[in-house]
Amino acid sequence: MNDRIELRSDNAAGVAPEILTAIAGANSGGALAYGGDDWTARLQQTVADVFEDPDVRVFPVVSGTAANALALAALCPPWGAVLGHETAHIIRNECGATSMFAGGAMLLGLEGPGSLVSPDALEATFASTGWGDPHNSQPAVLSLTCPTDMGALYRPEQIAALAHQAKERGLRVHLDGARIANAIAALGCSPADLTWRAGVDVLSLGATKNGALSTDAIVCFDRDPADQLVYRLKRAGHVASKMRFQSVQLDAYLTGDLWLRLATTCR
Amino acid sequence: MNDRIELRSDNAAGVAPEILTAIAGANSGGALAYGGDDWTARLQQTVADVFEDPDVRVFPVVSGTAANALALAALCPPWGAVLGHETAHIIRNECGATSMFAGGAMLLGLEGPGSLVSPDALEATFASTGWGDPHNSQPAVLSLTCPTDMGALYRPEQIAALAHQAKERGLRVHLDGARIANAIAALGCSPADLTWRAGVDVLSLGATKNGALSTDAIVCFDRDPADQLVYRLKRAGHVASKMRFQSVQLDAYLTGDLWLRLATTCR
Amino acid sequence: MNDRIELRSDNAAGVAPEILTAIAGANSGGALAYGGDDWTARLQQTVADVFEDPDVRVFPVVSGTAANALALAALCPPWGAVLGHETAHIIRNECGATSMFAGGAMLLGLEGPGSLVSPDALEATFASTGWGDPHNSQPAVLSLTCPTDMGALYRPEQIAALAHQAKERGLRVHLDGARIANAIAALGCSPADLTWRAGVDVLSLGATKNGALSTDAIVCFDRDPADQLVYRLKRAGHVASKMRFQSVQLDAYLTGDLWLRLATTCR
Amino acid sequence: MNDRIELRSDNAAGVAPEILTAIAGANSGGALAYGGDDWTARLQQTVADVFEDPDVRVFPVVSGTAANALALAALCPPWGAVLGHETAHIIRNECGATSMFAGGAMLLGLEGPGSLVSPDALEATFASTGWGDPHNSQPAVLSLTCPTDMGALYRPEQIAALAHQAKERGLRVHLDGARIANAIAALGCSPADLTWRAGVDVLSLGATKNGALSTDAIVCFDRDPADQLVYRLKRAGHVASKMRFQSVQLDAYLTGDLWLRLATTCR
Repeated sequence: MNDRIELRSDNAAGVAPEILTAIAGANSGGALAYGGDDWTARLQQTVADVFEDPDVRVFPVVSGTAANALALAALCPPWGAVLGHETAHIIRNECGATSMFAGGAMLLGLEGPGSLVSPDALEATFASTGWGDPHNSQPAVLSLTCPTDMGALYRPEQIAALAHQAKERGLRVHLDGARIANAIAALGCSPADLTWRAGVDVLSLGATKNGALSTDAIVCFDRDPADQLVYRLKRAGHVASKMRFQSVQLDAYLTGDLWLRLATTCR
Repeated sequence: MNDRIELRSDNAAGVAPEILTAIAGANSGGALAYGGDDWTARLQQTVADVFEDPDVRVFPVVSGTAANALALAALCPPWGAVLGHETAHIIRNECGATSMFAGGAMLLGLEGPGSLVSPDALEATFASTGWGDPHNSQPAVLSLTCPTDMGALYRPEQIAALAHQAKERGLRVHLDGARIANAIAALGCSPADLTWRAGVDVLSLGATKNGALSTDAIVCFDRDPADQLVYRLKRAGHVASKMRFQSVQLDAYLTGDLWLRLATTCR
Repeated sequence: MNDRIELRSDNAAGVAPEILTAIAGANSGGALAYGGDDWTARLQQTVADVFEDPDVRVFPVVSGTAANALALAALCPPWGAVLGHETAHIIRNECGATSMFAGGAMLLGLEGPGSLVSPDALEATFASTGWGDPHNSQPAVLSLTCPTDMGALYRPEQIAALAHQAKERGLRVHLDGARIANAIAALGCSPADLTWRAGVDVLSLGATKNGALSTDAIVCFDRDPADQLVYRLKRAGHVASKMRFQSVQLDAYLTGDLWLRLATTCR
Repeated sequence: MNDRIELRSDNAAGVAPEILTAIAGANSGGALAYGGDDWTARLQQTVADVFEDPDVRVFPVVSGTAANALALAALCPPWGAVLGHETAHIIRNECGATSMFAGGAMLLGLEGPGSLVSPDALEATFASTGWGDPHNSQPAVLSLTCPTDMGALYRPEQIAALAHQAKERGLRVHLDGARIANAIAALGCSPADLTWRAGVDVLSLGATKNGALSTDAIVCFDRDPADQLVYRLKRAGHVASKMRFQSVQLDAYLTGDLWLRLATTCR
């Protein structure tokens, strides 16, 4: 898609020096636990700046599976269905995490060329749904992945079109951005363009696969899932007592375009 | 498949006179609640006789969805997957009931001609499973439906072959028999031949669609799910205090081949 | 409390003749399944009349446990707590049903003399709650039982006071009315006075312990839980295909004060 | 209890230099993801040595809540009850995490002086349980905390006596060791004496409150919960892709008695 961009990254890769330095810098006593510290407050501001959304809220988590499953649980009622491409990580590779956290919600795999959800497949799912019929899990969230596990990209206008199609039916939109830095770098768009301006309500923001040590994050552009996540994360055991060590990783990652530089460097 | 047999039955149909009479006959005070009564003990014996299995255990429930979902929850761990035909009622028409009761288990729809699971589709699923890899929900139960919602039938030897294929991989086998009387009548086989002799561990036994008033049942040929169901049914609210009124329906239904006669009568 | 009133009733008791007659009367073919029938529509109107609430919605279920647990799941988020007397059936006798259906919600037992929740115990619970602190399950529902399993009664003004106290904190109010006919008969109040006029949002309406054959019900005075229950009941397997046979029992039960007469007859 | 020992530790405290050094040392590329690396293998051996149990299995997690709730879910069926002191962290401070992961299991708070479960309270709970009666959640796990959140300690023989009492009833035993290094240091016992030799099946091993950066762990002395945790951790989002950075923290923590030295140093 772009011969200068490496879209596949590596869980096994090392940690960026900037991020290691940031971790060392947070090692002072007296900080407040569970995210009540200054580093976490600064991360919140950095995310607001990078995504051009003053009301955004960010929650560090320890894995992409946690980000996806908890974000989706905050968007989908137990009787709902999450729609994604049939090859999506949430369907194929997370051992039913989303279904568990969402109280037995269904995961529906949609077809589409090149690992991308096609508007026709989405429409076909809507057409075959018994809306309001309790025999049918009710489509509640469209989850897109960019780049996909196969390295394909949605352009912002493609996300916007799919999101529009979904929202006309009352769904909300989740973006699995496990490697979103690669997508932003490859597309040359702004983070806002690929997310909330295109209709994304909640983003799973990957960092560990791209130079962080132990953190990914959930980024909420919508208030309701954020309010739920305060509780959902805690009871899932995903609120680290020394959250500051995750926050500084994310803050360093997003500062000065480090995430985009890491995404364009062959490692 | 058989021009004398009506495989589609009707939830809206009336109740057989034998069953109404049986209900009236159970209306004496002093009976023990929650299935501790003589009528329920008699049902247990009748099921043992009809299915030729002295150790069988039967649990009346109020719907086929309850029978399927609770039976499957007793067979599938939360990280497991239930495999069924992509058109199966448990996948298409029960609003995620199985996934809920099984703690977020996955439901995997398999292809196959004529609404029947094909051995090839089953093998393909096994081949693509990462056995022992926690990224993958682990196939734990094969759920077959006979007759299917489309009216197709598995012959006993077909069930046996699929069950054998599944058990070699450690799965257990569930039969959704919402209309099993129609299948037994059409195939001319014995209830045992179509179920435990073919490898079925747990059966959802339909009755309401075929002349009963308010009861279906779970029939366990295997001890472990039965032991679990004592608790699973209670906490699902599926243990009726006056269970005897369900038990007598099922007892009358299975006595003197009433169920098979009802299944061959156009109503 | 009232020497003419028998507050303890019996799951093992017989079925009232009026109810048996009503069942027989619903045995005509051609009725629509899953509650889309005329008998269920009539029940809806009867409940509206008896409870003086034109917007009320009623859902027949097969047990009191189902009524309680599903009603509470529709009122309590997974991170919430349901508060009830420490001797309440939902805490002591339902094997965690409410916690299961509510996604792991907590059940908090409150003290109080005579099996009644005391305002002081409720206030003490509120005072010790970390409101907004995700370490703490957030109190979300107050569940009262009238009469209690020990036969004690809340008067309407007592329910109103507790409900007021709860609602000031944002909780909603559930009434476990497994034997509510006994309470209404003993107190000489109207059904509305003991329920929605006192602040009750959802009622578990018992009938089986008091002359019905196989049905209790959830009665929603609030719209949101009713909208959820359409789906929650289905995926719990609690939507009987021949629901009309439950609806006619409830309709006969509530018509002409049969329920109150049964509640005052020593059986 | 011991005037030289500080039993209360601090989530906000800094990270031990040995642990920071260990993290930096694991920052080489080419390591296998999800714990398939050499550092995690070495941790496994270190835990076996420190706990004198060659078959032990250790799983790094990001919080004590994750350790407790997932360990308990692997020990308690959905219809079971976890018994702990009424002030236990799992009951008071984890927002229902255990109940969620265990499919709606009940948490029963027991009384006892000084925040310690008393044998009498345990016996009273057993005496009031309807064993085998599905109205009652069945006691399945005894969870002890040492030291407790109030700083009290069980001696090894006290744990052994309670564990014996529990195991006679078929329960398994969990130890919440969020600050277990403080207990071991204060008691002067061996890690094995306070855990599996006293009958503990699974241990939540705290490290973050005592000098680690971002990791606690589940230590299984019993095989069955360990086999489950492979899947349960994954679908809970608690398997970090770069697990080696947690493993080296724990390995450094347990090596050369660092954990015990940290526990006896006023920080």
